[in-house]
Amino acid sequence: MIYLDHAAATPVSPKALAAMLPYFSEQFYNPSAPYLPAKRVREAYETAKDEIAHTIGAKGVDLVITAGATESINLAFTASHGKVLTLETEHSAVLEAVKQHDHDLVKVDKNGLISLDDFKHKLDSKVEFVSISLANNELGTIQPLAEIAEIIRQERQKRYQNSNTTPLYLHSDASQALNLLDINVARMGIDLLTLNAAKCGGPKGVGALYIGHGVKLHPLTLGGGQERGLRSGTENVPGVIAFAAAATEAKSHLNGNRKKYQEMTRIFRQELTKTLARSPASVPNTPIIAQNAEKSNSNHNTGFPQVQFLGNSKRQLANFCPICFSGLDAERLIYRLETRGVLISTGAACAANKGSKSHVLTAIGLSDAEIAGSLRISFGSTNTLDNVRQAAQVIREEALHEFERISHGR
Amino acid sequence: MIYLDHAAATPVSPKALAAMLPYFSEQFYNPSAPYLPAKRVREAYETAKDEIAHTIGAKGVDLVITAGATESINLAFTASHGKVLTLETEHSAVLEAVKQHDHDLVKVDKNGLISLDDFKHKLDSKVEFVSISLANNELGTIQPLAEIAEIIRQERQKRYQNSNTTPLYLHSDASQALNLLDINVARMGIDLLTLNAAKCGGPKGVGALYIGHGVKLHPLTLGGGQERGLRSGTENVPGVIAFAAAATEAKSHLNGNRKKYQEMTRIFRQELTKTLARSPASVPNTPIIAQNAEKSNSNHNTGFPQVQFLGNSKRQLANFCPICFSGLDAERLIYRLETRGVLISTGAACAANKGSKSHVLTAIGLSDAEIAGSLRISFGSTNTLDNVRQAAQVIREEALHEFERISHGR
Repeated sequence: MIYLDHAAATPVSPKALAAMLPYFSEQFYNPSAPYLPAKRVREAYETAKDEIAHTIGAKGVDLVITAGATESINLAFTASHGKVLTLETEHSAVLEAVKQHDHDLVKVDKNGLISLDDFKHKLDSKVEFVSISLANNELGTIQPLAEIAEIIRQERQKRYQNSNTTPLYLHSDASQALNLLDINVARMGIDLLTLNAAKCGGPKGVGALYIGHGVKLHPLTLGGGQERGLRSGTENVPGVIAFAAAATEAKSHLNGNRKKYQEMTRIFRQELTKTLARSPASVPNTPIIAQNAEKSNSNHNTGFPQVQFLGNSKRQLANFCPICFSGLDAERLIYRLETRGVLISTGAACAANKGSKSHVLTAIGLSDAEIAGSLRISFGSTNTLDNVRQAAQVIREEALHEFERISHGR
Repeated sequence: MIYLDHAAATPVSPKALAAMLPYFSEQFYNPSAPYLPAKRVREAYETAKDEIAHTIGAKGVDLVITAGATESINLAFTASHGKVLTLETEHSAVLEAVKQHDHDLVKVDKNGLISLDDFKHKLDSKVEFVSISLANNELGTIQPLAEIAEIIRQERQKRYQNSNTTPLYLHSDASQALNLLDINVARMGIDLLTLNAAKCGGPKGVGALYIGHGVKLHPLTLGGGQERGLRSGTENVPGVIAFAAAATEAKSHLNGNRKKYQEMTRIFRQELTKTLARSPASVPNTPIIAQNAEKSNSNHNTGFPQVQFLGNSKRQLANFCPICFSGLDAERLIYRLETRGVLISTGAACAANKGSKSHVLTAIGLSDAEIAGSLRISFGSTNTLDNVRQAAQVIREEALHEFERISHGR
């Protein structure tokens, strides 16, 4: 099996698993209990929080541990009851949370990049909360957070000069980015940052929310008062310790990972688009033509068979390679690919499961035929250059097979 | 080390740990992803939910998985915006949640048992939500849920006859009870039931809420729509699989466990109260006198040294043996006990951590001196009859040492 859906889930890394194991049955004590073995668990837990925080240039006390990115996002949104701005391409957790608020959606371009003009235009004096993911979960598009933060800083200054006391917070969902981008909340000017263990080699069911100074949140759950009263309940000690190990590991391999995944993407694109040495009899020697959105503004639907690489690779997480075979049925293709040992999804897992059309691909202006033929490919720790090359060959063959089938009206 | 604080945390059982391990790094797929290995994960997850549900006589679809009892309780409380009744001895998660509502607290007797008269009196036609734990987390007192449910049924009938459409739901926190009581939600007449993996041999960070038919809740977190839209976020697959293994194991050993812990309690009490063979020179042959609250209504403060067994053992979880050495400083005692290898806490871990006086012990009418001298002892899987006997001897010796120290004004 070659797994190309690391944006949906990553295996827990051996280091993270080893780190957490002693905390299930041996160091199992309640970190709030008064005896020394429990205090040691408390210490290990707080140290783990510090380690997670260090990967984003923060301190452990600035983090609230949650059950995952969705909870972090929902908690972040309690900072304000006022107007919210977000991108039309955000994860469903953000888009559902904004529905509880007066809100407006900022447009993106054909690569999924925020329109800064539209953002400036919509950032009126009533907006209290801006939520923009660091990297999109379907396209991998990296948003220019520093520029966004600078625009917000200017708006704050304007409000100050106008004696407008409306607060303005910037939240970013960094779920997909921790193992590929060098995140520093202070440098980036971010007030609230969502992290997700399960996307960077940690376990499912653990996330964190960084909370900058001066941001006041309202707990979603009340009780024993853990996590500074913002998230009551006995701490998930093993989960947090594994998260720390995974985050630290990811951070220390940031540059190496980026280079590795850039090379995988290069090989993947090359293999996918090269002339077939032995093509199906009915499609003699037909190459799949690369239609690269970042280089061409022409109509996507010319040429057949063709593959379109979605997003701009210069502004994309190195491990993302979303592609589109316009005219093909991606659902059918992923089934065929699975029988040949290649695991891919069409988009976000939670959305795919509901069979709904990707709002992200709609927002970047893809046609229904293009959306129906799109695949999200995301590399990760289970991949090697060899298995990526092999997967590309299988995808090329199966896509050509499907193109052929359709061109013969079968 | 002899651990006597299983009410604060239990080690993950070997079976539960073995069950969850493959789901970290091998079967790590997102259960919402479209390929077969992910669908198998989905199947395993849903089967695990069914198994958890079966232990309380319900179906998997009736459960929402949460990050623990605190979240379950907070979610349960979204059933109503109206008036709430609960016990003055409930866990802080319940007591904090009720503060968001118009509410009233029902009295308990000196054993922590609900006053049904007070309950009937306070259950007026405006009450919409009743939350009463199955067993108290400090005393182990088992509440008569069936009787409570019957009173609620009568109130519903009365409302129906009076064309009063105010709903009335019964929620119970069963966190401490799953491995000792035979729970059946239908038979008990419970609408909402909170479960906690970490108190019955499962991992921290996992809980469940049983939701009866016709109860409409409002999600605390919005997003991908997992758990019937009531709790979005990628599912904590390993955690739920471990919870299922632990719950199933607990359920299958219900009777054996009860007998085992009853015997432990008997031995513990016997050892604690028997005449010392070799007493400190200054307290020649002084026995610790058992002052059993369930048998005596006399003033607790007669006699010294003495131990008081809190609660009524006939209405108490078999593994709970809370005790009180009136006049002693329990904080100091648990420190001394720890140096001799016996781990005990003074009460709920999250409360102990804040240094606040137990609201449970206050509610059952203990004096400040009694509360200050109280210990929560709870047996569990790490205990044997031998280590319980040994622990009782150590506690007796250290308590006598403390009594002696105090009687000499040191």
